[in-house]
Amino acid sequence: MAKEQVNVGVIGAGVVGGGVVKVLMESAETIGARTGTKIALKKVADLDRSRLEEFGLPDDATTTDASQILVDPDIDIVVELIGGESPAKEFILEAFKNGKSVVTANKMLLAKHGPELARGAAAGEVGLKFEASVAGGIPIIKSLSEALVANRFDFIFGILNGTANYILTQMAENGKDFSEALEDAQAKGFAEADPTLDIEGHDAAHKTLIIASLAYATEIDFSDVYVEGITRISDLDVQYADDLGHVIKLLGIIKDDRDTGELEVRVHPTLIPKNYLLASVKNEFNAIYVRGDVTGTTMYYGKGAGRFPTASAVVSDIVDLAKDIRFGSVNRVPPFVFGDRRRIRDIMDIECRYYLRLTALDRPGVLGQISTILGEHHVSIDSVIQKPVPKGKDVAAMVMMTHRSRERGLRAAISTINALDCVTGEAMVIRVE
Amino acid sequence: MAKEQVNVGVIGAGVVGGGVVKVLMESAETIGARTGTKIALKKVADLDRSRLEEFGLPDDATTTDASQILVDPDIDIVVELIGGESPAKEFILEAFKNGKSVVTANKMLLAKHGPELARGAAAGEVGLKFEASVAGGIPIIKSLSEALVANRFDFIFGILNGTANYILTQMAENGKDFSEALEDAQAKGFAEADPTLDIEGHDAAHKTLIIASLAYATEIDFSDVYVEGITRISDLDVQYADDLGHVIKLLGIIKDDRDTGELEVRVHPTLIPKNYLLASVKNEFNAIYVRGDVTGTTMYYGKGAGRFPTASAVVSDIVDLAKDIRFGSVNRVPPFVFGDRRRIRDIMDIECRYYLRLTALDRPGVLGQISTILGEHHVSIDSVIQKPVPKGKDVAAMVMMTHRSRERGLRAAISTINALDCVTGEAMVIRVE
Repeated sequence: MAKEQVNVGVIGAGVVGGGVVKVLMESAETIGARTGTKIALKKVADLDRSRLEEFGLPDDATTTDASQILVDPDIDIVVELIGGESPAKEFILEAFKNGKSVVTANKMLLAKHGPELARGAAAGEVGLKFEASVAGGIPIIKSLSEALVANRFDFIFGILNGTANYILTQMAENGKDFSEALEDAQAKGFAEADPTLDIEGHDAAHKTLIIASLAYATEIDFSDVYVEGITRISDLDVQYADDLGHVIKLLGIIKDDRDTGELEVRVHPTLIPKNYLLASVKNEFNAIYVRGDVTGTTMYYGKGAGRFPTASAVVSDIVDLAKDIRFGSVNRVPPFVFGDRRRIRDIMDIECRYYLRLTALDRPGVLGQISTILGEHHVSIDSVIQKPVPKGKDVAAMVMMTHRSRERGLRAAISTINALDCVTGEAMVIRVE
Repeated sequence: MAKEQVNVGVIGAGVVGGGVVKVLMESAETIGARTGTKIALKKVADLDRSRLEEFGLPDDATTTDASQILVDPDIDIVVELIGGESPAKEFILEAFKNGKSVVTANKMLLAKHGPELARGAAAGEVGLKFEASVAGGIPIIKSLSEALVANRFDFIFGILNGTANYILTQMAENGKDFSEALEDAQAKGFAEADPTLDIEGHDAAHKTLIIASLAYATEIDFSDVYVEGITRISDLDVQYADDLGHVIKLLGIIKDDRDTGELEVRVHPTLIPKNYLLASVKNEFNAIYVRGDVTGTTMYYGKGAGRFPTASAVVSDIVDLAKDIRFGSVNRVPPFVFGDRRRIRDIMDIECRYYLRLTALDRPGVLGQISTILGEHHVSIDSVIQKPVPKGKDVAAMVMMTHRSRERGLRAAISTINALDCVTGEAMVIRVE
């Protein structure tokens, strides 16, 4: 069964792919000695020849044609790092058909087609690993799939998007408004030219879905994951959250309701108390906070993106697969194990506390009117901060924290409140955990 | 090669062992389904029959004679949870000889006899796992041995003893003195009746040695690990550290000096800035902060002790070994891979900043005299806090932070300073990182 050396082909030599190539070129030998498993970089493919030339690899070790890697009988492991749905999916499925194991960092593909990929790997009797798809250099996939197997998870909270976390941290700590903080993130390379996936929460949602699928052994449709980004968060909200002893984070939230059997899987800006450990996770860092019934609370922290943190995760997957190939133990840790499909709770049916920010005319009885409407929808107010009316204005900001309430009632109340004459503009609503 | 079901024998049914038995009794089936590997609890041994009776297991599944587990041909995995050096070591070596893989949480044994145990496992062609030996429910062993294989580590800092961390947290947050905090820890079950191993730093040192051996692939003699406990830390030090924007933690510190090839492996109370993430690790929690050259910084946080967090780690090791047995991939991840032996730096040769607390007569020129002596030993002062002289006394506390200095010079300076007439009592010295 034993195979002397395991050969790797890398498709995609961009930021992460280039990092993987560099790590393998520099450290494959050391890693081999430390892990007892010889790994060799056989070939790198990229459409852009100039990227390939940078590595100084021999001519026959680079190609602009990915299929040269997919059909090469000497290659045991294909590393897919081109991202996006197509042709990444086709490449991976072809690799499986050709008996090759795959490492990918492609969270969008896994979130949308994870079960199909898992079936493809099983059919080809090969492995599929994706540590780098969630939280870059943090070994959360391995921790959930292997280290925490004794647990049922009560809840999992994740700061899973470094761009969004960088923006929110800059708003909180340096008083920037959203667009200044976004520009700063782009200048520092923490946000892409088109930051939509990051700031609208989709990237965090892909990762949250992957975590939930692993932790609860269930297939989940991406359309069942509630997603709300950070673009509506204003510097006022960040300031008021601070006054209330909280910070605002874009959280992936997964909760198990054992009574109803429903699972909550949602991504949205969230107020959390400043003394929570997650509140100390700043700038481009990611963290996942996990409550298991046996282990209790654990947290995993590190860089969620970037060339080398992500490459580190890819290389650890390569080593794992290389060991499985060497020992003939492929699928020792299957990519996903799906049990019964869990029902995902509708966002209207969740319950939590809410932060509300209203702009209202400075007139007697306004607070009474608002609290009556909230009360009619079974939303009760825990505390109110009423800011002094700015000079020369007749509107004031009113900030409230509610007690635990149901989303459906809250939304109905807010739409009535928004329609009041004394309320100007739309109320801002942020969930609190 | 495939084995249908893997049988487990547990030796030691105390706090952790009892937890493992309970988890296996309740969840072996679920875990089997989730991981595709059937695990069955075959037998539990303890000298104390009353502990065994609690589980309600059939008579033939319990024994007061550990050797019944060690010789049982049906048992594939032996879980050693009796602790201490003997007879734990003999039990483990016998299990290896009888072709059984072993899970242990015995950090003292691993720190003192790790290489011998690793050789025994290799000779028996069986596995040895010990996730529970360091930081309980935190998967730091797996992270270092598998997830972070692409890295060379610049440094690793660990809060590895929950008792010590609980005491220091209570001193800092509730103004307790050392003995009050210790009594509180004992009342809450976070400290044993004899807390020596915890408060003198030996337990943390065992764990630090294990981490260093894994991270740097080297054998280390326990006698080369510098150890200093927290018993001399006074409430004054905790208060002054706070004034200086720091907290005091008992840290395991491992540093790689690539220039000299020396490794620092030491455990002692350490001042760290309050805004470090490790400073937020409070009470009985543990955390390990790791800087790798590829991944950058990652941190792992959770409960470092207690029945169930530790049992969770033991069970994940059982599952890993069960998979290896099922797939015939034993030693896929060897317990230790030792390369060249690294030289451990003498504590006299380390360099860091120092916190000094002196009690000196309130007399002109004292500070000048002290700083002259420090200067003669190449220790320069970064800042000084001189506390007002308490009414009716003629001695004052003087607190200093030095610039980066060498331990040898600092100790020579301190012994000269302690001998000064104007200095009363011994100077308190705490390292700063």
